[in-house]
Amino acid sequence: MEVPLEKFQDECAVFGIYGSPEASNQTYLGLYAQQHRGQESSGIVSSDGEDHYVLVGMGLVNKVFKKESIEKLRGSIAIGHNRYSTTGESLLKNAQPLAIEYSDGYLAIAHNGNIVNAASIRADLEKQGSIFRTTMDTEVVAHLVAKSTETSFMPKVIDALLEVKGAYSMLIMNDNEMIVVRDPYGFRPLAMGRLGDAYVFASETCAFDLIGATYERDVMPGELIHVTEEGYKSHFPFPKKEPRHCVFEFIYFARPDSYIFGESVHKVRKGFVRELAKEKPVKADIVIPVPDSGVPAAMGYAEESGIPFDIGMIRNHYVGRTFIEPESSIRHFGVKIKLNPIKAIIEGKRVVLVDDSIVRGTTSKKIISMVKAAGASEVHMRVSSPPTTHSCFYGIDTPTQGELAAANYSLAEIEKYLKADSLAYLNQDRMLAMFGGKGNSYCTACFDGNYPIQRYDTEILQPELFDRIGE
Amino acid sequence: MEVPLEKFQDECAVFGIYGSPEASNQTYLGLYAQQHRGQESSGIVSSDGEDHYVLVGMGLVNKVFKKESIEKLRGSIAIGHNRYSTTGESLLKNAQPLAIEYSDGYLAIAHNGNIVNAASIRADLEKQGSIFRTTMDTEVVAHLVAKSTETSFMPKVIDALLEVKGAYSMLIMNDNEMIVVRDPYGFRPLAMGRLGDAYVFASETCAFDLIGATYERDVMPGELIHVTEEGYKSHFPFPKKEPRHCVFEFIYFARPDSYIFGESVHKVRKGFVRELAKEKPVKADIVIPVPDSGVPAAMGYAEESGIPFDIGMIRNHYVGRTFIEPESSIRHFGVKIKLNPIKAIIEGKRVVLVDDSIVRGTTSKKIISMVKAAGASEVHMRVSSPPTTHSCFYGIDTPTQGELAAANYSLAEIEKYLKADSLAYLNQDRMLAMFGGKGNSYCTACFDGNYPIQRYDTEILQPELFDRIGE
Amino acid sequence: MEVPLEKFQDECAVFGIYGSPEASNQTYLGLYAQQHRGQESSGIVSSDGEDHYVLVGMGLVNKVFKKESIEKLRGSIAIGHNRYSTTGESLLKNAQPLAIEYSDGYLAIAHNGNIVNAASIRADLEKQGSIFRTTMDTEVVAHLVAKSTETSFMPKVIDALLEVKGAYSMLIMNDNEMIVVRDPYGFRPLAMGRLGDAYVFASETCAFDLIGATYERDVMPGELIHVTEEGYKSHFPFPKKEPRHCVFEFIYFARPDSYIFGESVHKVRKGFVRELAKEKPVKADIVIPVPDSGVPAAMGYAEESGIPFDIGMIRNHYVGRTFIEPESSIRHFGVKIKLNPIKAIIEGKRVVLVDDSIVRGTTSKKIISMVKAAGASEVHMRVSSPPTTHSCFYGIDTPTQGELAAANYSLAEIEKYLKADSLAYLNQDRMLAMFGGKGNSYCTACFDGNYPIQRYDTEILQPELFDRIGE
Amino acid sequence: MEVPLEKFQDECAVFGIYGSPEASNQTYLGLYAQQHRGQESSGIVSSDGEDHYVLVGMGLVNKVFKKESIEKLRGSIAIGHNRYSTTGESLLKNAQPLAIEYSDGYLAIAHNGNIVNAASIRADLEKQGSIFRTTMDTEVVAHLVAKSTETSFMPKVIDALLEVKGAYSMLIMNDNEMIVVRDPYGFRPLAMGRLGDAYVFASETCAFDLIGATYERDVMPGELIHVTEEGYKSHFPFPKKEPRHCVFEFIYFARPDSYIFGESVHKVRKGFVRELAKEKPVKADIVIPVPDSGVPAAMGYAEESGIPFDIGMIRNHYVGRTFIEPESSIRHFGVKIKLNPIKAIIEGKRVVLVDDSIVRGTTSKKIISMVKAAGASEVHMRVSSPPTTHSCFYGIDTPTQGELAAANYSLAEIEKYLKADSLAYLNQDRMLAMFGGKGNSYCTACFDGNYPIQRYDTEILQPELFDRIGE
Repeated sequence: MEVPLEKFQDECAVFGIYGSPEASNQTYLGLYAQQHRGQESSGIVSSDGEDHYVLVGMGLVNKVFKKESIEKLRGSIAIGHNRYSTTGESLLKNAQPLAIEYSDGYLAIAHNGNIVNAASIRADLEKQGSIFRTTMDTEVVAHLVAKSTETSFMPKVIDALLEVKGAYSMLIMNDNEMIVVRDPYGFRPLAMGRLGDAYVFASETCAFDLIGATYERDVMPGELIHVTEEGYKSHFPFPKKEPRHCVFEFIYFARPDSYIFGESVHKVRKGFVRELAKEKPVKADIVIPVPDSGVPAAMGYAEESGIPFDIGMIRNHYVGRTFIEPESSIRHFGVKIKLNPIKAIIEGKRVVLVDDSIVRGTTSKKIISMVKAAGASEVHMRVSSPPTTHSCFYGIDTPTQGELAAANYSLAEIEKYLKADSLAYLNQDRMLAMFGGKGNSYCTACFDGNYPIQRYDTEILQPELFDRIGE
Repeated sequence: MEVPLEKFQDECAVFGIYGSPEASNQTYLGLYAQQHRGQESSGIVSSDGEDHYVLVGMGLVNKVFKKESIEKLRGSIAIGHNRYSTTGESLLKNAQPLAIEYSDGYLAIAHNGNIVNAASIRADLEKQGSIFRTTMDTEVVAHLVAKSTETSFMPKVIDALLEVKGAYSMLIMNDNEMIVVRDPYGFRPLAMGRLGDAYVFASETCAFDLIGATYERDVMPGELIHVTEEGYKSHFPFPKKEPRHCVFEFIYFARPDSYIFGESVHKVRKGFVRELAKEKPVKADIVIPVPDSGVPAAMGYAEESGIPFDIGMIRNHYVGRTFIEPESSIRHFGVKIKLNPIKAIIEGKRVVLVDDSIVRGTTSKKIISMVKAAGASEVHMRVSSPPTTHSCFYGIDTPTQGELAAANYSLAEIEKYLKADSLAYLNQDRMLAMFGGKGNSYCTACFDGNYPIQRYDTEILQPELFDRIGE
Repeated sequence: MEVPLEKFQDECAVFGIYGSPEASNQTYLGLYAQQHRGQESSGIVSSDGEDHYVLVGMGLVNKVFKKESIEKLRGSIAIGHNRYSTTGESLLKNAQPLAIEYSDGYLAIAHNGNIVNAASIRADLEKQGSIFRTTMDTEVVAHLVAKSTETSFMPKVIDALLEVKGAYSMLIMNDNEMIVVRDPYGFRPLAMGRLGDAYVFASETCAFDLIGATYERDVMPGELIHVTEEGYKSHFPFPKKEPRHCVFEFIYFARPDSYIFGESVHKVRKGFVRELAKEKPVKADIVIPVPDSGVPAAMGYAEESGIPFDIGMIRNHYVGRTFIEPESSIRHFGVKIKLNPIKAIIEGKRVVLVDDSIVRGTTSKKIISMVKAAGASEVHMRVSSPPTTHSCFYGIDTPTQGELAAANYSLAEIEKYLKADSLAYLNQDRMLAMFGGKGNSYCTACFDGNYPIQRYDTEILQPELFDRIGE
Repeated sequence: MEVPLEKFQDECAVFGIYGSPEASNQTYLGLYAQQHRGQESSGIVSSDGEDHYVLVGMGLVNKVFKKESIEKLRGSIAIGHNRYSTTGESLLKNAQPLAIEYSDGYLAIAHNGNIVNAASIRADLEKQGSIFRTTMDTEVVAHLVAKSTETSFMPKVIDALLEVKGAYSMLIMNDNEMIVVRDPYGFRPLAMGRLGDAYVFASETCAFDLIGATYERDVMPGELIHVTEEGYKSHFPFPKKEPRHCVFEFIYFARPDSYIFGESVHKVRKGFVRELAKEKPVKADIVIPVPDSGVPAAMGYAEESGIPFDIGMIRNHYVGRTFIEPESSIRHFGVKIKLNPIKAIIEGKRVVLVDDSIVRGTTSKKIISMVKAAGASEVHMRVSSPPTTHSCFYGIDTPTQGELAAANYSLAEIEKYLKADSLAYLNQDRMLAMFGGKGNSYCTACFDGNYPIQRYDTEILQPELFDRIGE
C-alpha cells in the first residue's frame, strides 16, 4: 500500500535558464517576479560547467540574495526555487533547489508540485539502507536517480520519474545539462521562453516579462525537455494521460499578468466573477472586496452588476507573524488588526462582500460581523469559486477535509454560521464553461473530489529527521 | 538671520495614552495602525510613575517590538512614534521618542512636524555650551526645556515652545504628566479620544479604531492639553493664528479610514477626484491607476466618468531596498521591477492613467512609456492634485524646488516630457471648494508658495554628530 | 585499492552518559572540561526513550549551549562531541554528533579518531546509490549501519565496524541503547566511570572530575560496551591486536590533570622532560618556555637542571583569527603579536628555550630571533619530544611529511636554520623507557614511521558536498 | 558638598598617535597589546584634518575592529580606548573615546582614571540646562570644554581640567591637535614614545613594543603635552602635587613586560614576592600558584624559598559568562569550573598556596578547601600584597569597604575563615622599600586609607540616562 508524504512541496515557483552569461542574476529576477508563489525560502544553484554554486536561505528573495552573493553564483546555467510556508516547521534543510553529490557528480532539483507516493518510495529506499536528510518529497527523486542503473543523466532521471506519481513541474540540472519536465497530467504550470540564445523556464510568464524574455510555449503535460550545449530535445517518456490543470491557479494563486495553461489569468479570473454576478445577483448599494485577494473579483462583480464598487475596508499591509495581542478584549480584534472598515462608506448600506474563496469560514464570519458593526444594513457574501469541499494533494496547500466549511455543512448552514444575509458561490459548470471545450482538461478535485490520481492515505510517515538547531 | 534645520521630522506618526494598565501594548497597536506614516524607525517610552522605560529601534513596528520587550515597558503612561525614512542617513540616534535626563529628571518627546528655526536655536545653544547628540530638530525643544528658568514642568515646556516656529503635533511626558500640544497653525493632525478612563492621542483616528477607543475631538491648533492624575486641562498659551491644515494629508498621506481635521479622508479624497473628472474629461476606453497610491483616485475617476476601471498593472509588493540590477539592459527595467502591465487589459485601448500627484515626473514618464509598449493606443494622464510647485517646510518630505517638475516647466512642457497624449491636474480652487467655507483654513504652500510661516534659508547647518558604527 | 578520507576527525573529545536525570547538563560540563580537545564546534544528542534532541553549533561549548537550549535536550541518555578546527573549511554539517534517520529509527554517533579506509567505503556505497551529506569519515559508519542486514542494533553496529579500519573511540546511541567502542589498537583514549547509577564515558578523566564522577577503568582496545536499561555488557567482536596508544597525547594534547592509558598525564609529561634534561644538559643562566605549551616542559627542565626558570615572554591570550597586519614592516611582527619578550629577564643571559615539539620550525625560528633581539647572549633550544618525522593518520592533526622540518633535514641543519646555539630533542628510547615494560604498547609512527595500520594513499577523494550558504 | 560619580572609568587603556600614515591601524595594535586593561568595549577616533571617524563597539579589540572598518578610520591622528567591565550595566553609550560636536566643531576624549568630583560638576551643569547622554565621568570634561569662554582649544581644555579633581591619564583630540595630560598626582601610568616622525602615547610600554615604537619617557604628573603639526610643547598648568603612583599596577594590573612609573613591572613584582618569602617563610613540600594571577608570585616564592614549584591546579581558560550550573550538587563546583587540582602533585604534600591579593576571601576559601580535598596535608596561604582594607577611588575597581575581608577582620580571623594552616601578607613597608627612596611617591590608599584626594561621599547621583534597547 502506498502512502503520501507530508505536503511540503505545495505552491512553489521554479525558474531555470540555460546558456546566459548572467544566469544567476536572471534567475534571481525570475524568482523575484514569482515571489507571490512562495515566501518562506528561496534558492539558486548555478554551474559554470566545472563547479556548481549553491545559495539557499530562509525568507524573501531580496533577503536571501545580495549583490555579492549572486556574483558568486557563477556560470551560464542556473535553476531557482521559491518555497511557500505551509507549516511552522519551515527549515533550511527543506529549502530548494536540493543539491546533492552522488556517484556521477552532483545534481540539483527545483520542484513545484507534490509526489503522492513519496512516503512509500522512501520507506522502500530506507529498507535498502538509504539515509534521507530532508523531509521533502523531492528527495526521493534524487535517491532514485542515484540508485538508477542507467549510465547517463537523462535515462537515470527518466528511470527515477517512472517510479513517482503525482504533480511535478521540475527542473533538474547537472554540470552542463538541464532537464525540464512536467507530469503527465500537467497539474502545475510550466512555461518555456527565449532570452537571446538562452532557454528560460518558469512557473509563470510574469517572470519572463521582468527579464525581457519571450514566452514561447508551455512545457507540455508529460513532456521532458533535455537542454544541452547542442540545444534542446523534447521527449515524452511517460504513459499519456488526459491533462488536469489546476483550476485553482486562476481563482487565487497565479499573478493576473501571467499566462498559464495558455490563458490570461486576468481574463479567466474576471470571467469567473462575471458568471457569478450573472447567476447570483442581489439588490445592494455597494460592492466591497475582502482585500487583497477579493479585489479583482469584487471589481468584476460591480462591473457586471452595475452596483458601485468601493474599497470599504483598509488592509494594513504591515502585518507580521509576531503580533502581540492585548490582554483587554478589543472587539473584532483578530480581524481588525488586518482590516479596518470605513464607516463613511459602509454605514446604512446594503453591502455585497466579495471574496475569491472560503476555506474554513472563520475569517469570513469575523469580517461580516465587523462590516455589520460598521453600520451595514445587509451583507451579501459572494464567492468567485465553487465551494471547497476536498483537500488538494497536488500542490495547493488546503487544510484537511475536516476543516473545510463546505465539506461539512450545507450552503444554508454556512450562510447561517457566517450571519450573512445571503451567500452564493460560483457554479462549477459555469466556471468550466469559461474554458469553452477545454473545461474537462482541468482538475476540480478540491470542488468535487474527482481526484485524477488515487488518493493515498494521508497518514504522515516521516517525522523531522535532522532538527539541528543552528541550521 | 534664522536658518532651518535639515528636514528630518517629516511625515511621522505619534501616539500617546494616559491612565491605562496596558499603556505600552496599546501604544504598540496605535503605532502599528499608523505604520503608513513612518517605516524607518519606531519607539515607545512608558512610565510607571517611578521609572521610565525606553525601547527604540530601526524598522517596522512589528520588528522593533516583541512580546517580551513590550512587557518591559511598564506603567500606565506611554508615548510612541513612527518615523519616515527621508534620507539614507537614517540612524538610531534620530529615532523617537527622544528621551533625555536633565536637572528635573527625565522627559520624552514624540513629534510630528518640522521646527523651521531649529538650526538657529541650536547654534545659539551651542554657543552657550550645549552639546547636542542628534540631528533632529526635536532636540532643541529638549534643550530649551532643560534651560528654562521656570520651576515646574508645564511652564518649562511653554517657555520652550514660545521659542520655536513651525509645525508640531507633539507629545511630551515625564514621570506622571503628559503634555499634548499642536502648533497655532495646526499643520499636522492630532486627535484626542477616550478608552475607558484613559486619554488617548494619535495622529490619525485609525489608531483609535484598532484599540477600540472613541474619537472625541481634535486637539485644536495652538492648544496645549496638560494631562495629570487629576484629569486634563486645556490651555492656549501661544499667539492665535488662522489655521493652516496640510491639504496634502488628504491627497496622499493619511489612511482613507481616518478622520483628520474633522473630515473623512476617504470622502475628501474621492471628492477631489470627482472634481478632476468633471473638469478634465477625456474620451477613453479604460481607467487604470498607478498602483498603489493612484487606486482610489482612478476608481473615483472611473465612477464619475463612466469609463470602465481596471487594474492594468500589477505591483510587486516585495520590492526591497537592495535590488540588484542586471548588467544586460532590460527594457523599462527600473519601473518593471515594481510594476508589470497586463497586456490583455491594455492592448489597443485608450487609457486614462490616474495618479494622486506628480513630483519629479521621472517615474510617470517611465510608466507611460511602459503602458504604451504594452499596446495602449493613447495614454491620458490625470492627477488628483494641483501641480506641486514648492517644497514643504512643515513636515511633508518633498524634494527641493529645483527637482519639482511643475516648478520648472509649463503644463505643455510636462505633457511633452511625459509623452502623454494629454495631461491634466486638479484645479486648486475646485479642490478647496470641496471644504465649503473652510477652504482657507488649509495650507496650500506646496501648490502656490503661500507659506504661512516665513521661509528660512534652506542651508543645512548641522552635520551628523555621532556617527558611531555599531549604534 | 583503498584510499583515506580527508582528515576531519582529528583531535576531538567525546562524552557520554547513560541513566542520569541531568544527562544533557552533565554532557555539557563533560564537553566543557574537554574544550582543549576541540574548539571548532560542539554538539549534544539526547534521548528520553521516545524522542531524541539534537543541538549542534559552531564555536566553543559556552557559545553553543545556553541554559534554555540545554533544557530542551531532554532525557537520561546523551552523547556529546567537541571538534577541533583543522582546516578553514569548518562547516556546521561536519559538526558532531552525527544524527541520522534510517529504516530502524534514528542513531547518533560521536567519534574521536580517523577511519583510514573511509574514502574507499564511501566510493563503494555511492556506486550503490547512497547519498552522503557530510565530508566526515564518521558518516560511512552511519551508512554501513543503515545497510546492514542484521536485525537489531548491536549486531548492525558490529557489522559496520568490521568494515572500517583506523582509530576510533566512539559512542553510538539510539532511543534507549548506547554502544561505546574503541578500536583494537586503542589509539585514542576512552575512559569509563560512574556517577551514582549512571554510566559515564569520556576521552579524558578531567571530565569526570568536574561532574563529580568516579573513574572506573579505561574502555579496552577492541572492547565494545553495550549499555541498556539492564546495565552494560562487554564484548570483544574484533580481531585482537597489540595496543598502540598515541604517545603524543602525553606530549601535548591531553590535560595534565587527566589520567589516560592508565597514567597521570602530568607525571609522564614531567618524566619526559627530566630525561631530556639529564641527557641534553647545557650551561645556561635561565630556562624560559615557549608559552603556553612549553611551560610545563620548561619548569621540569629547570627543576632537573638547577637552572633558574622564568617566564621570559608574555603571551597575549586575546589573539583572534581576524588579525590585521599593518602595512609598514614591524620587526618580528608575526610572532610579537602573540609573544613579547621581557628584556629585563633576558638581556645578557644564556637562555634555554624549551618547547614540547617542533613541527615546521618556522615559529621556533622567529621566537629564537626575537629572544636574541631582546638581548640573549645564547639561545639553546630543547624539545621535550623526539623529532616529528611522519604525519599521523590516526587522529592527530599533523601537516604532510613535506612540511615537517625533521622529516627533511638533519639535526644540524635544523639547528642552523633556527639559528640556535644548540638544539636537542628527547631521545625516543628514553621516552618509551618511562613506561617501564609497556613502552611497546605505544604508537610512535609520527617519530619513526612504524604505522600500525598500512598507510593509504593520502589523496583526498571527496570534495565539499553541500556548501549551502546560510548553514 | 561634592560627591563622586559612579566608578565607571576604572582600569582602562589609552593609546594615541599623531602624525602617522597608518594611525588607526597602529592604534588598533596599541589597544590590542593593552587588551588586559579592558575587555568590555573598545574604540578609535581618527582625523584626517577635515573629517573625523569614529568606531566604538562592545567586546574585545579583535571583535570590534575588522580590516574594512579600520580602513574607514582615515587620517594621521588617532586615539583609542579599551574599557574594563566593572558592572553589569555595560552599555555602548559608555564606551570610549567619547566624541562630541560643540560650537567649535568636534572633540574626542580617551580617559583612564576617575574624576572624583564629576557628580557635583554634572549636577551644576544640569542646573544650567546641560543635557548629558552618558553616565561616564569623562562627559563632564566635554561639557566643561564646550562651556569654556576661552577662544582656542588648549585654553578651553585647561579651563575644563582646572575644575576636575581625581585621577586622569587623558588624550583629547580635535581635527588637527592632540592634548595629552596626566593629573598632578600621576595616579595612572602614561608613556610617551616615537615611531618614526610620529608621537605615540600609551598607558603601558608593551603597546610600543608591538608596533616597534621607542619608549622615550613618561608623561609627567601634572604635565599637559600639546601636539600640533609644528611638534609638541609641554605645559604644567595645574598646581603642583607630590606624585602618588598607583602601587597596585605592579601587584596585579600591568603586564610584566611593560615599564610603568619608570620601573620594570616584572622586576618590581618579583621583588615584592621575594620580600614576602624572606619575611614569611614556611616549611613545606611544594609551592603552587592560584592560576593565572598567582603564577609569577608563586614562582618567585619558590625561587627565594627553595621549595619546589609546580602547577598544581589546571585552569580552564574557556570559562564564559553564561555558565550553566547543574541542579545536582557537585562538590566544589563553583571553583572547579575554573580550576581542577592535580592529585598526583598535591596528595600528601604540605602546600604553599600563593596569590597576588585577597579581596573578599570567598574564592580563596573555596580553593583551599579544594586543595585539601585533593589530599594536601597542610595549606599555607601567602599573598604578595598587603591586606586590602580600603576601596580605590582613583581608577582600580575594588568593591566597597564592607566587602573587603581585610577591612573587617583580623589576620587571625581571615586565616580561620579560609581554613588555612597559616596565612601571611606582604608587609607594606617592605613593599615600599623596594622602590628605594621613592617609596613615598606611591599611593597606598587601598592598604592604609591615606587618600591623596579627599574621599567624597560615594552616593551615586546619576542613574542610567538613555537605556535604549538596540544600542
